[in-house]
Amino acid sequence: MARTMNRRPVLRIDLDAAGAPRHRPDDLAAEEPLEIRVGRAPLAVTMRTPGQDIDLALGFLFTEGVIREATDVVTAQLCAGTDEPNTYNVIDVVLGADVPPPVTDPSRNFTTTSGCGVCGKASIDAIRTRSRFALAEDPVAIPARVFAELPGRLRAAQRTFARTGGLHAAGLFDADGTLVVLREDVGRHNAVDKVVGWALREGRLPLRGHALLVSGRASFELTQKAWMAGLPVLAAVSAPSTLAAELAEEAGMTLVGFLRGRSMNVYTAPHRVTL
Amino acid sequence: MARTMNRRPVLRIDLDAAGAPRHRPDDLAAEEPLEIRVGRAPLAVTMRTPGQDIDLALGFLFTEGVIREATDVVTAQLCAGTDEPNTYNVIDVVLGADVPPPVTDPSRNFTTTSGCGVCGKASIDAIRTRSRFALAEDPVAIPARVFAELPGRLRAAQRTFARTGGLHAAGLFDADGTLVVLREDVGRHNAVDKVVGWALREGRLPLRGHALLVSGRASFELTQKAWMAGLPVLAAVSAPSTLAAELAEEAGMTLVGFLRGRSMNVYTAPHRVTL
Repeated sequence: MARTMNRRPVLRIDLDAAGAPRHRPDDLAAEEPLEIRVGRAPLAVTMRTPGQDIDLALGFLFTEGVIREATDVVTAQLCAGTDEPNTYNVIDVVLGADVPPPVTDPSRNFTTTSGCGVCGKASIDAIRTRSRFALAEDPVAIPARVFAELPGRLRAAQRTFARTGGLHAAGLFDADGTLVVLREDVGRHNAVDKVVGWALREGRLPLRGHALLVSGRASFELTQKAWMAGLPVLAAVSAPSTLAAELAEEAGMTLVGFLRGRSMNVYTAPHRVTL
Repeated sequence: MARTMNRRPVLRIDLDAAGAPRHRPDDLAAEEPLEIRVGRAPLAVTMRTPGQDIDLALGFLFTEGVIREATDVVTAQLCAGTDEPNTYNVIDVVLGADVPPPVTDPSRNFTTTSGCGVCGKASIDAIRTRSRFALAEDPVAIPARVFAELPGRLRAAQRTFARTGGLHAAGLFDADGTLVVLREDVGRHNAVDKVVGWALREGRLPLRGHALLVSGRASFELTQKAWMAGLPVLAAVSAPSTLAAELAEEAGMTLVGFLRGRSMNVYTAPHRVTL
């Protein structure tokens, strides 16, 4: 846990409290850049909370469609080439000889056209990665009362959030509502990548019969990552976007939003939420 | 407001309410990709809420250090090359002849080294853009009681959030706490870019004497954008990260976090918060 947070002095002002503002120490969620290199070439830099960096890199490569199996990766290691502290902000990944190298278009896989107009549908298609997992057939069903318990279980397991208030979380649950793995990060996409990378490394993909709960909103990007991992259910404490709902519908994924207290909104594939 | 949200049917489940779950329409915050092209070459794709796209592109280019003045841009226009609806997901920017084209390194301006180890400090330096505005000398001071009123004013002005619950906001305030401009987006960095792009277009940069309030957390990226725009004060409703606090300290920027109710934490340069 050492590098997941750092203590700083802070001036605490409370206009409703008696006495003068006071200086006190405060724990902040750590944020540092991680460069992911594939075959010595830099592929991406993400601002992340240190910890589970290998899983983060593996999950990123998998959900971006660069790798399809854990065996596509020969080695993935944190570099520590100097004697300085905090030298762990680069991960070197070596792919198998038969794995095509990633596309390193500066526009990040956005297919460019010679014309000027790109309609919404076409531009969305262009940034899509393609999941090889069909979700519609996943027969998992989870009672609404189990859904209602997930946020509390996620929060109870969030160790760093409790002290910093500054981390997103992604929790993988089985159909009984048991927490399988939890990951935290300043970036919500990183938290999901860490879960997916863990599952890849553990040989658990696709994540049939499972639900992923994220502590914030459900975006297109998170929905896409969930689909890539074969997750039939994505739940979010806060709101989904239009594109998240549209992608979930296309995928046959159950998308639950505003999961708070004992209520929730089911945006797509509601047959998996039983009463 | 047409494209900032979309209505979808949703199954609303409330385990504490009488009666069966019911289907009802729900407004979702719109999310679509925007491709920013510079000189016909794709530079970046961002997932954003449509609206103020020109400001978003200008703010992005300014805070990324690609442009320094509004006059660096000859034209910036949304492309609509076809007859299809929703063709507005590409912006073409033409820079002046004397403006160096942007670096389109796939690792997004992360300076790569031949060695393997990159220490935290070096890797952060590499992703830094350089602001030409010195904030330390900005004499602005804002009473704590004015800070306490900003979140309420931001929320009151958030039209789309009220209906979708799904948008981040960035609000620019003057030292009296008057809201100057508000922008909303599914991406918090986009909301800030829209504010900065507006200010660039209006000839208001640097934003001396102003405060920027963001509805979520304060990350390194948002702090860097605020510095690029010459903002002496950044306030966040939620937590800052370690790197946000470190960058604010280096910049001489006042960073306020957990601005809720009538209390707040001041992480750096507390002399600008008066009692």
